[in-house]
This record gives sequence, structure tokens and C-alpha cells, in this order.
Amino acid sequence: MKALLLRDIRLPDGTAADVLIEDGSFTAFGCNLTAPPGAAVEDGQGGLLLPGLIEGHTHLDKTLWDMPWYRNECGPLLAERIANERRQRGLLGLDPARQSKALADAFLALGTTRIRSFADIDTEIGLKHLHALLELRQAQAGVQEIQVVAFPQSGLLVRPGTQDLLAQAMADGADIVGGLDPSGIDRDPKGHLDAIFGLAESTGKPLDIHLHEVGELGAFALELIVERVLALAMQGQVVVSHAFCLGDVAPARQAALLALLAKAGIALATTAPPSRNVPPVAACRAAGVTIFGGNDGIRDTWTPYGAPDMLQRAMILGLKNDFRRDDQIEVALDCVTGTAARGCGFADHGLAVGMLAEAVLLDAQSVAEAVVAQPPRRLVISGGRVVARDGILV
Amino acid sequence: MKALLLRDIRLPDGTAADVLIEDGSFTAFGCNLTAPPGAAVEDGQGGLLLPGLIEGHTHLDKTLWDMPWYRNECGPLLAERIANERRQRGLLGLDPARQSKALADAFLALGTTRIRSFADIDTEIGLKHLHALLELRQAQAGVQEIQVVAFPQSGLLVRPGTQDLLAQAMADGADIVGGLDPSGIDRDPKGHLDAIFGLAESTGKPLDIHLHEVGELGAFALELIVERVLALAMQGQVVVSHAFCLGDVAPARQAALLALLAKAGIALATTAPPSRNVPPVAACRAAGVTIFGGNDGIRDTWTPYGAPDMLQRAMILGLKNDFRRDDQIEVALDCVTGTAARGCGFADHGLAVGMLAEAVLLDAQSVAEAVVAQPPRRLVISGGRVVARDGILV
Repeated sequence: MKALLLRDIRLPDGTAADVLIEDGSFTAFGCNLTAPPGAAVEDGQGGLLLPGLIEGHTHLDKTLWDMPWYRNECGPLLAERIANERRQRGLLGLDPARQSKALADAFLALGTTRIRSFADIDTEIGLKHLHALLELRQAQAGVQEIQVVAFPQSGLLVRPGTQDLLAQAMADGADIVGGLDPSGIDRDPKGHLDAIFGLAESTGKPLDIHLHEVGELGAFALELIVERVLALAMQGQVVVSHAFCLGDVAPARQAALLALLAKAGIALATTAPPSRNVPPVAACRAAGVTIFGGNDGIRDTWTPYGAPDMLQRAMILGLKNDFRRDDQIEVALDCVTGTAARGCGFADHGLAVGMLAEAVLLDAQSVAEAVVAQPPRRLVISGGRVVARDGILV
Repeated sequence: MKALLLRDIRLPDGTAADVLIEDGSFTAFGCNLTAPPGAAVEDGQGGLLLPGLIEGHTHLDKTLWDMPWYRNECGPLLAERIANERRQRGLLGLDPARQSKALADAFLALGTTRIRSFADIDTEIGLKHLHALLELRQAQAGVQEIQVVAFPQSGLLVRPGTQDLLAQAMADGADIVGGLDPSGIDRDPKGHLDAIFGLAESTGKPLDIHLHEVGELGAFALELIVERVLALAMQGQVVVSHAFCLGDVAPARQAALLALLAKAGIALATTAPPSRNVPPVAACRAAGVTIFGGNDGIRDTWTPYGAPDMLQRAMILGLKNDFRRDDQIEVALDCVTGTAARGCGFADHGLAVGMLAEAVLLDAQSVAEAVVAQPPRRLVISGGRVVARDGILV
């Protein structure tokens, strides 16, 4: 692989530097680096270099991105949205392979080099979405790392046959066992959690559990999850997504729950939805709980919002947490870069020697400006080479 | 003024049409309109035509837009932010004339044809900001209508001399009397409200009151405001901005307060901040309360967020109110178009014969797509002519 010398950029801390990339990894940061013979050279023109962005929670398989506009007339209940989605995906002729590829490429063009995506599994579609994402994971390898969560969106125990599909999904190569709302959807918190923890234990795979349940119902589910993580010594192997309940409960209860999560090494994924209570990022970090960001669904039958731009998600996360100071907005960016890598278990990420060469170059005077203004991406580097210029894949 | 025929656009309801503009106003909407002799003709290429966008609450005078990045290190209290701003505007050499022009032009380039802006007044800067905005109002006339609110940001009664400045501001031509946090800042709710209502009554001008006060303190201020509106028969003349308290109180109290506001014809301006409780748009509309949108400050010493793009604000308002259905997102757009015109008292606004010819053309399949994706503005029409193409003023 040809070496790449990126001249005249500024690092996130403001330092001016050149960056050398060899064999797909960063090999030097410094002033006036010499290009090895045959190296490609890019002039950064003083732009700001950010690490590759990370989408920690999305649903590539069911986006309507690039499809004709879908007019949303669905009711507000979770069960209505799940049922509407099952109905619409047939009516709309949603092709999970085509759709997930379109959105993954749009993410890459805007600098997202790692993605954790859920793949719906149910007794109607079987493993069709999962297999589409496993193929995408293979197709994008080398420029975009995709983790695939086998996700029983329509329920696990309440739809007999789904447990077998989930087990088959893991056998077929899914990276992560998914769960959701053990009381709200499956109506059996113990049964649901025992099932998914059992599958995680038997396959040696981590877990990612959607927990929309609010208030004390959600808090109870968190306690059950912590109990199982400690019993099975699965610290560092479990993500709880959403965990809105942490934003509902009183401060003392919140602090006690965060202490439990920290003890169990459970990470949180947040989409920072403006309309809901959410886990507060600063309190989570202060308690030692890893919390990172994601879009959730992007332009699908659930919601028309979202964009394959993790800087926009960082902005929304910053707005939601009332992060106004520059040091706070740097935390918002960290939620879609370094901390997201740790929370999802993406290896070798970051702007440092030895890490995989993934980076985004843009015109911004500071990290905070990059987050609030989301400027065009002049260059995206991944797999050690330029993969996009001015928002277009090369 | 030359006539302008805009061919082949789609109206917000999806109808395909041509649009004829003569003497600065819309004179016909229909199919296959004939261009009058000498008319300019623009091909809309099937784009979506939206009415001119309206910014209902911003602070043009103190934006740092287009200035070097300001690193925010300010504490979180309202008093800290007010004091920090007074300190920084000197250190940064903020020129309100230059800054307000830069931001107003940026708004126009993205389709905002009407703006309500506050102008800070205090005993340090006197009427400097106000005069800058009055000059801007004059300079933009014909393509962008600006309402100027004389705003005692640092307090009215607590800073002796400010009342005289406010009276002078109205004499100098300010459109609207401003007030803020009668308890939180001025420490004298009766005194503050009597003063600003007195000035509004004596000058015959409307009022716009920033009310950040939360919970029952804010609700009390709302009651005091309603009492004065009814006593002075000022229905339709008062806007309360923010009114976070309406999102804090219990549902029955909220309903009672909304009924009072409806009775008093008091409108609300909301920035829909993701981090706070806010007046819920759907409940306000159901109660007959006019509620419209605005950015508040854009990239200033208070906050680095915000953009001169009312479609982005409509998106944030939609996210905050969990508006997912298309009909709900159309309400979000209405908050920065038709209802904002009514709430602020901007005349002759909208896509209809006889209204001032102000419109934005963009590529979107639906109003909802325009709000969630905020596509480039292909054309902005104001004062009966094309004033911007592809985001650049012509």
C-alpha cells in the first residue's frame, strides 16, 4: 500500500502538524515530515483533522435513505411503530442490502469509519436483514468497520421461533446479541434477560440491549441486567442503549444506578433525543460510566430525522446536554469518536501512532466549530487512503 | 419593477404550479401562466416552493458570526452569562452594525425574509446596539423586514438609568418594548412589569418579554402579565419568549395557564431548546395560543449553536416536540412561517395572491423532507425579485 503524507493540518488540540500514514496506520505526527519515496502527498491547507467518526447505534437495514419520500402517518406508541414498520417494509419494497449499503456509503463520505448497526430479526423476515448486513460488513471491510447486532425488534419470547433465529444469527456470524424492553415488549423481564444472557454466554459474544422503558420499570430492568453481568463476569461486554429511565429518576436514584453500571462495566449508548429524558452525559462520565452517541434509525418508518453525519449527532448531543463551553463540546465529539470506540470495542482507533489511519479533514477553527457548524468534509481517510473528497466517495 | 414568472414549481401541498410576481407581490398561481411582456422567467425545475422563512426571536446585534472563533469558558448561570457578555463584547471588539448585517444577510441567503431581533440596551453601551439595528432595518427594507425590540438585557430597575434609555429607544424608533425575568433579574416583578407595560401603553407599541423563570415563579409572572394585558386591553400586542415554566408545571396547571394566555391573546416564542422543558407546541395550538419559533442568539458569547437557517430551527422544534408524522412536521414549518407572521405581526406574508412576493425554492419531495434535510436553497425571492441563488446573495 502506498504511503500517504498529509501536510499542514491542525490536530484537535490546535497543534499544527504533518501526518504520515504507512501500511494503513499512522506512523508519524510532526512538523516538516519527509515523504517516503513514492508516497502520495495531500495538502491539508491548515484544515482541522478529526479522528474517524463512529456511529454507535443505528439501524442500517431499514433506512429509507435515497428512496422516494415516505409519508409518515403512524401513531405514537412503540407497539404501533413496530407494527407499522413490519407492514410498511413490505409495501415499500424495502431491500435491506441496497438500503444498508446506501446509508453506510453516505456515512463514509461524511467521515464515519466505524458503525454499530442492528439487524432486525423476526419470524416474518427471518435472517434476511442480518445476512444483508453481514455481507455489507464484508464489502466495507478495509474502509469501514461494521458491527452487526442480531436484534429481535418485534420481541423474542412473545414471537415463538425468534429465539431459534437469534441463535442461528449468532452461528451465522453476528457480532453481538441484541435484546429489548424485557418488560415492555416481551412481558417477561426475567425470561427475556435470561434468554439473551444465556445466548451471549454460550456464544461468547457481547450484548446490546435497547431499553426504552421509563422510570422505575426501566430502572428495575437495569438492576436485573447488572445482576446478570456480575454473576456471569461479563463486565465490559454489555451496552444498554437509550436507558431513558436514568433521566427520569430522582438524582439520588440516578446516582445509585450509575454506580451499579460503573461497577458492572456496562456502557450506555445515547441518541440524545430532544423530546425525552436521557442519561446525562456529564453525570455518567463523572460516575465512571462509558456513554457514547448514535443516531438510532435514520429516515425510516419510525422517524424522518437523522443524518449519516456524526457531527450533527454530536451537535444534538451537545444541545441536549446544554454543553456550551468548548471543553464540553469536545466531550460531545468524544462521544462519537474515542469513547464510542471504547464503548463498542472498536480497536486501534484515534489520531496516534500505531492506530488505523482513519481521519476527517474539514475547515473549522476549533473542535467546537466543527460540531456546531458541521462543515463540508474536505477529505475522508480510511484504510490508509483517501476514500472521499468534498463529501463524495472516490 | 420587472415582473417575474417562476415556472414549474410545487407548492407546499404538492400542487404543481407556475407563480407570477408583479410589483413585488404574488399576482397569480396556476398552470401554464403566460409571462407578461418583459417579465423575467425562472425555471423552477419542479422544486418545492416555501413561503419566506421567519426568524421570530434572535439577537442580531451580538452575534460573533464570521468573526474568529470565540472559546467559551463561561459558567452556567444566567447572571454569569449576562456579565460575561458585557465583558467579552469589549474584549472582542464586537461591532453591532457589522455583526448584525453579516447575520441578517446570511439569514436572507437561506430564505429568511422577516426577522424579529432584540437590541441590547444597558448603561454601558447605551443605545449603540439599538441604533445599529435601526440602521440595518432601513438598509434591509424591501428585501428583509426587521422588527427591533429595545431589550434591557442586563436588567431595567436594577441598573438605574436603563428606564430612560428604554424610553429614548422607543422615541428613536424601536418597534417593540422588551422586558425580561421580572423576578429573576430585576427582583421586583410588579415594578418591572408596571414599567414596561407603562412604556408600551404610553408609546402605543407592543411588548416582547423574555421569561426564563422556571416553575411557579415563571407561572406567577405569566399571571401578572395576563392581568396587565387584560387591564390595558393589549390583547394581540404581547409576546412572551421562552416561557419554560409552561413545560415545568403539572398538566392541569399548564392547561389553566394556556387558557389564560389564549384569553389574553398572548403569543409565545419558543427556541425549543433540547436541554429544557418548553411550552409544548401541540398543546399550545390546541388551546388557541399562538406559538412560533426562533433561534435565540446565534454563535455568541451565550452559545456557539444556532444557524441563520430557519429550516434547521424547524427541525429542532420538531425533534423537541417529537413531531414525526408529516402533518406534525408541517406544523414545525408553520412555526417559522405563517404562525410566526401572525405572532410577530408581519403583514402580507404567505404564498397567496396579494401577499408580498417572498419565497424559497429548494429540492425536496415534501415539506417534511425540507425540514429534516434542510437542502440548499436554489432560489430566494424577496421584494419581488431573486435575491439569492444557491445560498449566495445576488
